[in-house]
Amino acid sequence: MSEEDFARHNARMKRVAEARAKMQARRTLERGLLIVHTGPGKGKSSSAFGMAIRSLGWGMKVAILQYVKGKWETGERNFFEANPDLVTFEVMGEGFTWDTQDRARDIAAARAAWERSKAMILDPAFDFVILDELNIVLRDDTLPIAEIVDFLKDRPLTKHVCITGRNAKPELLELADLVTEFEEVKHPYRAGFKAQKGVEY
Amino acid sequence: MSEEDFARHNARMKRVAEARAKMQARRTLERGLLIVHTGPGKGKSSSAFGMAIRSLGWGMKVAILQYVKGKWETGERNFFEANPDLVTFEVMGEGFTWDTQDRARDIAAARAAWERSKAMILDPAFDFVILDELNIVLRDDTLPIAEIVDFLKDRPLTKHVCITGRNAKPELLELADLVTEFEEVKHPYRAGFKAQKGVEY
Repeated sequence: MSEEDFARHNARMKRVAEARAKMQARRTLERGLLIVHTGPGKGKSSSAFGMAIRSLGWGMKVAILQYVKGKWETGERNFFEANPDLVTFEVMGEGFTWDTQDRARDIAAARAAWERSKAMILDPAFDFVILDELNIVLRDDTLPIAEIVDFLKDRPLTKHVCITGRNAKPELLELADLVTEFEEVKHPYRAGFKAQKGVEY
Repeated sequence: MSEEDFARHNARMKRVAEARAKMQARRTLERGLLIVHTGPGKGKSSSAFGMAIRSLGWGMKVAILQYVKGKWETGERNFFEANPDLVTFEVMGEGFTWDTQDRARDIAAARAAWERSKAMILDPAFDFVILDELNIVLRDDTLPIAEIVDFLKDRPLTKHVCITGRNAKPELLELADLVTEFEEVKHPYRAGFKAQKGVEY
């Protein structure tokens, strides 16, 4: 680029900066958000863990409850259990429903996890509560969506709540403040790769 | 559900489990993946930080280089700087291009960041290298995509590399093993909310 191009670019960037400042000045609302990560793509849970890291960087207190990871060894579990002062990390499920193959046990486990979730959300000690894979349990009607949505409507607005998992129910999307759909563009499974440590679990 | 429904469900789940086991047995490849997080939705960087956490849980060594966050205070920066033993965390940019308003300075900063990125990728000490917001720099042609893709083609296959940022170049998507597109379904900005600590930064 020539000197002149550079000058033009810099002038344009100055206008972009001004427009952004104006836009940001209009954004004044602040309260805890209800966040949903859904869709078939990879990254829904890891993005929630990343927000946990960001929150810790601001001195916030974080609770993570995993609904369906069961007794699996995962990277996040190893990490948070090895660093118990960072976040309150609990795993409630017994595995995916195709692992347990027992509907009654799934329902009981999901019910216990939901009671624990409510306690976390109501506990003033926490600023950020992550309910990992709750959407799976709702999709399968292992917990009734109406009851969950009713509780979330009346949640304390002083904290963020993030719910992950594919196939989020429309009732939940309707209530949420921030929804990201994770789209799979290319997945190494299709090329014959195994699930990779650090990436998928 | 009746006893009979439960039994039917359990039998179906058994078949699902068998099909999954068969599918997984066919996935035998294992090597470092080139991962791209792109799209307009929220969560691209936080998902990369979440994979860093997972990797740490498996004893892997992680390096994170941020291209455009500049001198901003962010949650991830606060966290990783307060816990320097966890990951190698470096911030190279001077802010978004509309903050610097100086094309020549942007190019010099991006070049320095890319030289550092190559060193990280070639360093056998690291198992996972995250180049946060590199896509932004490539989109603006602040670095030449051909040079970056040529280097990545010949990268060591013993480690994962994750590149984030919207508007990923087609040449990069072509080379990548795992691509997720983050779609914005609902964003609190539009409802007048400020960017929230722990969520957006």
